[in-house]
Amino acid sequence: MKNVFLRYPTKPMDVSKKSISQLTNEMILTGFQGRKLGEVVETWLAALERNETTIFFGLAGAMIPAGMRKIMAYLISKRMIDVLVSTGANLYHDCHEALGRKHYLGSYKVDDVLLHKNKVDRIYDVFANEKGFYKTDIWIEKFSTILEDGYPYSSREILYLLGEELSKRKRSKNSILVSAYNAGVPIFCPAIADSSLGFSIMFANIRRGKKIIVNTLADIEESSQLCEKSKNTAGIYVGGGVPKNFIQQTAVIASYYTRKDKSHGFGIQITTDLPQWGGLSGCTLEESQSWGKYKSDAGMVTCNCDATIALPIVAHALMERGEDTADKRDKPIFTWNGHRLKLKYGK
Amino acid sequence: MKNVFLRYPTKPMDVSKKSISQLTNEMILTGFQGRKLGEVVETWLAALERNETTIFFGLAGAMIPAGMRKIMAYLISKRMIDVLVSTGANLYHDCHEALGRKHYLGSYKVDDVLLHKNKVDRIYDVFANEKGFYKTDIWIEKFSTILEDGYPYSSREILYLLGEELSKRKRSKNSILVSAYNAGVPIFCPAIADSSLGFSIMFANIRRGKKIIVNTLADIEESSQLCEKSKNTAGIYVGGGVPKNFIQQTAVIASYYTRKDKSHGFGIQITTDLPQWGGLSGCTLEESQSWGKYKSDAGMVTCNCDATIALPIVAHALMERGEDTADKRDKPIFTWNGHRLKLKYGK
Amino acid sequence: MKNVFLRYPTKPMDVSKKSISQLTNEMILTGFQGRKLGEVVETWLAALERNETTIFFGLAGAMIPAGMRKIMAYLISKRMIDVLVSTGANLYHDCHEALGRKHYLGSYKVDDVLLHKNKVDRIYDVFANEKGFYKTDIWIEKFSTILEDGYPYSSREILYLLGEELSKRKRSKNSILVSAYNAGVPIFCPAIADSSLGFSIMFANIRRGKKIIVNTLADIEESSQLCEKSKNTAGIYVGGGVPKNFIQQTAVIASYYTRKDKSHGFGIQITTDLPQWGGLSGCTLEESQSWGKYKSDAGMVTCNCDATIALPIVAHALMERGEDTADKRDKPIFTWNGHRLKLKYGK
Amino acid sequence: MKNVFLRYPTKPMDVSKKSISQLTNEMILTGFQGRKLGEVVETWLAALERNETTIFFGLAGAMIPAGMRKIMAYLISKRMIDVLVSTGANLYHDCHEALGRKHYLGSYKVDDVLLHKNKVDRIYDVFANEKGFYKTDIWIEKFSTILEDGYPYSSREILYLLGEELSKRKRSKNSILVSAYNAGVPIFCPAIADSSLGFSIMFANIRRGKKIIVNTLADIEESSQLCEKSKNTAGIYVGGGVPKNFIQQTAVIASYYTRKDKSHGFGIQITTDLPQWGGLSGCTLEESQSWGKYKSDAGMVTCNCDATIALPIVAHALMERGEDTADKRDKPIFTWNGHRLKLKYGK
Repeated sequence: MKNVFLRYPTKPMDVSKKSISQLTNEMILTGFQGRKLGEVVETWLAALERNETTIFFGLAGAMIPAGMRKIMAYLISKRMIDVLVSTGANLYHDCHEALGRKHYLGSYKVDDVLLHKNKVDRIYDVFANEKGFYKTDIWIEKFSTILEDGYPYSSREILYLLGEELSKRKRSKNSILVSAYNAGVPIFCPAIADSSLGFSIMFANIRRGKKIIVNTLADIEESSQLCEKSKNTAGIYVGGGVPKNFIQQTAVIASYYTRKDKSHGFGIQITTDLPQWGGLSGCTLEESQSWGKYKSDAGMVTCNCDATIALPIVAHALMERGEDTADKRDKPIFTWNGHRLKLKYGK
Repeated sequence: MKNVFLRYPTKPMDVSKKSISQLTNEMILTGFQGRKLGEVVETWLAALERNETTIFFGLAGAMIPAGMRKIMAYLISKRMIDVLVSTGANLYHDCHEALGRKHYLGSYKVDDVLLHKNKVDRIYDVFANEKGFYKTDIWIEKFSTILEDGYPYSSREILYLLGEELSKRKRSKNSILVSAYNAGVPIFCPAIADSSLGFSIMFANIRRGKKIIVNTLADIEESSQLCEKSKNTAGIYVGGGVPKNFIQQTAVIASYYTRKDKSHGFGIQITTDLPQWGGLSGCTLEESQSWGKYKSDAGMVTCNCDATIALPIVAHALMERGEDTADKRDKPIFTWNGHRLKLKYGK
Repeated sequence: MKNVFLRYPTKPMDVSKKSISQLTNEMILTGFQGRKLGEVVETWLAALERNETTIFFGLAGAMIPAGMRKIMAYLISKRMIDVLVSTGANLYHDCHEALGRKHYLGSYKVDDVLLHKNKVDRIYDVFANEKGFYKTDIWIEKFSTILEDGYPYSSREILYLLGEELSKRKRSKNSILVSAYNAGVPIFCPAIADSSLGFSIMFANIRRGKKIIVNTLADIEESSQLCEKSKNTAGIYVGGGVPKNFIQQTAVIASYYTRKDKSHGFGIQITTDLPQWGGLSGCTLEESQSWGKYKSDAGMVTCNCDATIALPIVAHALMERGEDTADKRDKPIFTWNGHRLKLKYGK
Repeated sequence: MKNVFLRYPTKPMDVSKKSISQLTNEMILTGFQGRKLGEVVETWLAALERNETTIFFGLAGAMIPAGMRKIMAYLISKRMIDVLVSTGANLYHDCHEALGRKHYLGSYKVDDVLLHKNKVDRIYDVFANEKGFYKTDIWIEKFSTILEDGYPYSSREILYLLGEELSKRKRSKNSILVSAYNAGVPIFCPAIADSSLGFSIMFANIRRGKKIIVNTLADIEESSQLCEKSKNTAGIYVGGGVPKNFIQQTAVIASYYTRKDKSHGFGIQITTDLPQWGGLSGCTLEESQSWGKYKSDAGMVTCNCDATIALPIVAHALMERGEDTADKRDKPIFTWNGHRLKLKYGK
């Protein structure tokens, strides 16, 4: 009798002319994180193939300075992502590039005090022009004067208005904010206070006499509504941090509030953090199952890899294999009245 | 002529009866992360010894479930920390234990779906009682009814009131929130929306007709005031995430607003994240110097180690060597009128 | 005047139909480990383009169970590798597959005691048939009876004979050992004692009355001769361990013995280990420059990534862009008389 | 009815006057790697308390340059270790210090090309004098002339002779090699070829006309004999690499040869490597159980921490709590006749 553990042999990959998605397909029959990378593509495709599924995407890490902006814009505009939860920094850097400014090829082997004297800010091996950042700060501060005093905004509302404003500019088309505005993808930034985006809005208060309020409780309310009203949900994460936890918590809140099982049906994480340290960023999706954040039969995969390697590969494999599926799926279409969000599924 | 690179020999550590601070002292003359751990103690002591220095402390990671609550309470009550910036989860778990509930010894080698059926939530190798969490949620929801509708609270204000409420309970003395309330240490939680603490407050709105607002912009405003008004500052971090970036950003905002150099004079991080991935959590303190977050001559050290190992050792070494210094230093005493914070230094 | 640090903007990657080598080309203008992966391909191509360069390749980690065997065979047979230094396990597993046996798709979430009862050996998420391993052990033990008693073999000599033996079998063509035998690529396994390969040879001594000697000093002697006699050298590493150190040490020994600078001209490492722990496996190539292991102007790049992701990508990019170069280069052709090795460069 | 998963609450650690072993005791009731560190001490003590247990210890990583030499010498001389398996580098650096030379406090933020010009070799943040290394090389080369030509030495035999030679020097008392010689602890270095120790012996052959043979197969033969003849065994590892695999393989060989279960009864690893990459260095001890390397009821613990932090703490806790136990235990006493090793247990 055949040993049940020895049913499916690995298939050593050959080296031959092939597309990126053929490569990730073949990785599924290898081992370790390579296999996981292949499974990330499969699991994302499975989420796209499941109709009436709302795909939440959490974005952490300095992905925009590292050249991942167009990839994110692609995933949003092709609706391989339905709701984005991001750190403030990624949205700030997106805004910076949307305004026509650049990040620069740098090095991590450098004298940082000398960089400071030259008004150069370093993000590992990427450099940025501090003077350019000041201009972006001022631009956001000025933009913020259109916000209504005393209204308790969610971050989503402000980011929608910011996307709208940027969409008026020709050069901004590969922007995350603009793509999301155009594709009807809501963006949440629950830790907006923790970024240049947040403090530039705040400066409109202390230097321009505004009384803007960003009511962070509204973010919880709105995001959990989206989870409640979704038939199925997926959580996909690049990095951990607030975006990962926030998306996972929507399932907990929605289940708690509706007394139904609103846990996510798919979970995908690309991360360099690890479970051994006990933090949420690095924890396994299985651990999250104990909290009811994923269904017991959820499609789940974790790939431990720097996202600047994994994300481009996954995005290209999805382009090769998933565009039609994404196009044809019944995806969520969002409407709202203040903090009351609705969604229905459709093309 | 002596080679300038070969002046100071390492001193192999012997094994002999010694105190914890003697051990960390001896580590300074070894190498790798052991040396760094010794330097963490030295640098923290140097920050305590520098009069009129405001010590910001960033706390990320599931430190309270992992048994670090009394250590944090100790550091706060002895005023080795002056301002705390924390994730919501750590404050929620502190509240949970302050209400007399427990976390439990568990295992990471377990069936998480089975745990879920048993209403057990896992945090790596720590278990928690989901029913107990519900009770804590409800308690916070009820507490939130005392909050004023429509007032744009900062997280600090709410956490002050929460500390006050908990301080009325006898069993809560080793709590972070209570210790901070008693010691006059402000706590910021800029991503409060990203935690059970935040959503339990939000539930007072949607289930009890409250209209609570947490204006996250107020957190930026208040925290940067503290940095502006401090003579000297230190940033000490366990883990990265929002707390680290938020504390670092106070220096950027304060410098930007005052047009003076308000960068931190000390930087200490205990982290398992790494610079190679380009994220803020793992970046070097040197990288942060390029942004003007630390002075060019700042005392800085990074120790790559799980905080459940490093923090107990550092806290005990500080107890042995730093209590008197902490007691005698001119430390910041905070007062406020709404979002207008003041500080003066004194015993 | 333009800021010298801000000369070259990053180029955010778009998502469009492209080949694997176009993808890695574009990665060079991004950041973090993605950029490094692009640079690995560039640096390897540069080594291939430099005539009369001997390319040493160090292979550690369980790469064969993870499906990397044909990729390695490809790199060897196309002579993108000239000398292989490997752990014993990789060669043992290559032999196992060359004999027609398999590794199997498994899981790391499994009861290992149950696996043991079922005679299944686990390598993270790959399973192996212990009974199959016994057969391979016996095959190697029998093969070893052809070895001459009392002769102080280097591991290279034994691996040459093993490749020769395997080359007689039809099914073995994608084998590392067979490819190396056919391509004239010497293989060193300095820690052969630390593997099933080594102990199966030893069993010929204790169970079959052989008196085989593997004189590990001969490995040092032979490998340093290759470095001495090479015009230029490159060191490329998948993982660290003995293979990395051994290849780096050839440069030290060759320089020491010849009193000339025989340090490597290129260095490439794909590794998940890190410098922070002070070990040789994770150390930077820069650190190795202090030891004279790489020239001060060496082409060097480190990419922190699991090799099961990085190696397939790099190999395919090399196939697309480097086959002609590899074919045309003047590569080392090895001859030997006992432990006296020679090389001349030619097609 | 009580939930079975929620029986044992964690016990948050307070900050109070305590010894190092009290600290590690308290860590057992916390979480994450702190708990693991506490369990390392407990498990080591359990191995010492089990009579007639042979404790194998694997040492990898640049521990001696990092100041761990006296700690290792302590553990050996107190017989908390019975058999040492080490990388060549650690033994070479031990020899270097035993000859009165030093390692130096350095920095990893330095120009390595400049160091090379100054003949300074860097090991992360430790510097070494290259000229001093040359002297150590020559000393070893000269020592090697006492070795018998043509005799197939195991590394253990050579290291015994090296320990004997060094033991004649007064200053060498805190040496690993000397302590092991004095305490009757055999040392194996299966990858001796991969170190300055190995190549300095080899130089006696090519520069001094010697014909030394280090038969690496003898290492397998001898080490597996020790495992076969032991009643119980423990494997304790600092770092992974060859030492870890070699000690684990002794159990496999001994079981295979004797057709009895000779798997280890205890397993302890302190490592910064991780299972996710599939390599042997980072794999769990559970994975090794599938191979029959540890008994199904073995006492096992893995602590992910830099050894320069963990090892000093563990050694001091053992000193405080385990000296008597180590002294009273029936420990293995080794004798040999060529490659035929024997052991009996006694005080």
